[in-house]
Amino acid sequence: MARIVIDMDNVMADLTAHYVNSYEASHGIKLDLQALHGVPEGEVLPEGLVHKLLRSAGFFRTAPVIPGSQEVIKALMEKYEVFIVSAAMEFPLSLKEKLEWLNEHFPFISWHNIVFCGSKTIVEADIMIDDYDKNLRHFKGRQLLFTAPHNVHLADYERVNNWEDVAAALGVEVPAARV
Amino acid sequence: MARIVIDMDNVMADLTAHYVNSYEASHGIKLDLQALHGVPEGEVLPEGLVHKLLRSAGFFRTAPVIPGSQEVIKALMEKYEVFIVSAAMEFPLSLKEKLEWLNEHFPFISWHNIVFCGSKTIVEADIMIDDYDKNLRHFKGRQLLFTAPHNVHLADYERVNNWEDVAAALGVEVPAARV
Repeated sequence: MARIVIDMDNVMADLTAHYVNSYEASHGIKLDLQALHGVPEGEVLPEGLVHKLLRSAGFFRTAPVIPGSQEVIKALMEKYEVFIVSAAMEFPLSLKEKLEWLNEHFPFISWHNIVFCGSKTIVEADIMIDDYDKNLRHFKGRQLLFTAPHNVHLADYERVNNWEDVAAALGVEVPAARV
Repeated sequence: MARIVIDMDNVMADLTAHYVNSYEASHGIKLDLQALHGVPEGEVLPEGLVHKLLRSAGFFRTAPVIPGSQEVIKALMEKYEVFIVSAAMEFPLSLKEKLEWLNEHFPFISWHNIVFCGSKTIVEADIMIDDYDKNLRHFKGRQLLFTAPHNVHLADYERVNNWEDVAAALGVEVPAARV
């Protein structure tokens, strides 16, 4: 059974929307998502606010789920060995919050199949789904770049724009109503 | 540079001593370490107390460091790529505590090189040091079984009884005074 490793941030959890919503809530200013295309993730908000949010209690715990991720991951698990691999070690607060978030939104994923790491170079798998060039670049298997505003200009990868694309790329069927 | 993955519990952190000390503190009874030879880890203490301790706040945070581990790991890092890989996902409280414990006792290990997982089958490396048959069994590289009371009867592995043995097996020199 082929093994897929799936990233959390910006693949399962919509951190971009979460940044923008948090900024609107605190500053009353609604940012235009289109204007974030090609902007490095840390610069999505002014004054280093992204880095502050990433270190704020509750930020990861309350991130919205990217539509389709629950249904497609459930379908992938019937055909593949699925591991969730998140580079969580940089943000110690995130460890507990990410685990709780997964248990709430993806209760069908066992703790056996969750990995929190620093560098993803240690992971052995056949397929990787990630929004970051730095994670995909060193991976020996099939690389799927999940579209996020910061990576829209990257052309070197097989790109998936959403979870319907993932289902199509990996040959699983999900009833349209469920995605 | 060859990559080593090193387990935490019973390899870097002396959980057996920590169980026995905790039991003595709470029950006033000092268990004989020799009597624990060949006893499964969960049965080291009566009445499922090991499982309770593993889920107690502060237990992992206060575990004693196994002598020599700091000095030998520091020496290994000059010759190998070292990753600490702990099956921490079963005990959610342990995530933060294990990271804090590593930062306190092994401040020279970067967060880039720390992995908390459920199953260790996802890890790609050349050498694994672990006290558990279940982790070593599926590992394709060189397997070093670190002696713990529960594994003394296993004969299928290259065995290391302590960190001096690890240094010798992996060809690093540590001044005797430091181990």
